[in-house]
Amino acid sequence: MRIGELSRVTGVPVPTIKYYLREGLLPPGELSSPNQASYDEPHVRRLRLIRALVDLGQVPIAQVKNIVEGLDSKTLPLHEQIGRAHYAITRPRQLSTSSEEPSYAAAEAQVTDLIARRGWTIHAEAPALTTLTETIAALRSLGQDNLVGHLDAYADAVEAFAELEISAVTSPAPDGAARTPDAVAESVVIGTILGETLIASLRLLAQESLSAQGWR
Amino acid sequence: MRIGELSRVTGVPVPTIKYYLREGLLPPGELSSPNQASYDEPHVRRLRLIRALVDLGQVPIAQVKNIVEGLDSKTLPLHEQIGRAHYAITRPRQLSTSSEEPSYAAAEAQVTDLIARRGWTIHAEAPALTTLTETIAALRSLGQDNLVGHLDAYADAVEAFAELEISAVTSPAPDGAARTPDAVAESVVIGTILGETLIASLRLLAQESLSAQGWR
Repeated sequence: MRIGELSRVTGVPVPTIKYYLREGLLPPGELSSPNQASYDEPHVRRLRLIRALVDLGQVPIAQVKNIVEGLDSKTLPLHEQIGRAHYAITRPRQLSTSSEEPSYAAAEAQVTDLIARRGWTIHAEAPALTTLTETIAALRSLGQDNLVGHLDAYADAVEAFAELEISAVTSPAPDGAARTPDAVAESVVIGTILGETLIASLRLLAQESLSAQGWR
Repeated sequence: MRIGELSRVTGVPVPTIKYYLREGLLPPGELSSPNQASYDEPHVRRLRLIRALVDLGQVPIAQVKNIVEGLDSKTLPLHEQIGRAHYAITRPRQLSTSSEEPSYAAAEAQVTDLIARRGWTIHAEAPALTTLTETIAALRSLGQDNLVGHLDAYADAVEAFAELEISAVTSPAPDGAARTPDAVAESVVIGTILGETLIASLRLLAQESLSAQGWR
């Protein structure tokens, strides 16, 4: 297809597509004449992934480039390819819990212990490690230690979520096609971000309902 | 205690405390002389609640006033008192899913069905209802319907969370004291907001670990 049709199919304006081509986020089309290029299904998928990262994930273009380079690599394992996108959409929370606070060291020890106990394989620089530590430290310093005691109940549930989610993104597409790294990355980005909102809003509703039924 | 000590105990600057007094968020202290007021434990608790709402929840002052008026009401049931704080910290997500989109009506039906099937008691104007509907519509319109199929698995887990959380905030404090509405509201605000971050970061870690163990 020509660039105009690529734009119609994906909803991405032509000047934006040209910008992605210049930045090397989108591979060049096949030249059908000296000044006409033709685009294909992989371009459609790549554009959908870029939009998910930029629009939903608010990932800066330089980082998007790093992610798509990983996906185009012939040597990087899928875990590392997808991991780049996964880390990029982990937005830092502004908890501003200082690592100097006494509750911070206790929280760090609790997180290390949790990961060891559950046998989780986590990179030492995973951004979610810092977020989890800061959150536990904040709960403790605000005198709300009760929730921290239920860490394993939460961990049980998220493990079950993660199993569902990983099988959802790696199972064949509805049309039976195996999933390319681009398609898996797109599902991971959308599923991680929107799944978080899904869980958060369901949790608020369950809290409201239990409160309505028990506290009246 | 005098206002200076109230400031030291809570970490809230004296001018800010005076502003809260003028706005009626904090009840006046007891006059010990014509220009000296004395403050007590309920003032400490109220200030902690206000800070949780303002700092963590980013709730505007006018809404904080509506919440504390609810807590001071002698007639409002606890569910309604706490509900004001709960709704105030439900931040709208910027998904910008238009209710005109075809996926929106399908999502609305799915949410209505879920709530009926689970027997949840939810106010028709609960902000989380809109967020949930928009999230499901967005997942559908982005072609990621797989996750939506697991809605009941998520609902099972958040029900279990909500039970833990409600018993955590209503059980007696570590010192054995029954919880006042202010204390329950403070725990609900902090636990709802930080609990969401806790669950989100645990979920990212569980996803990373499963991917590391299965995708290498």
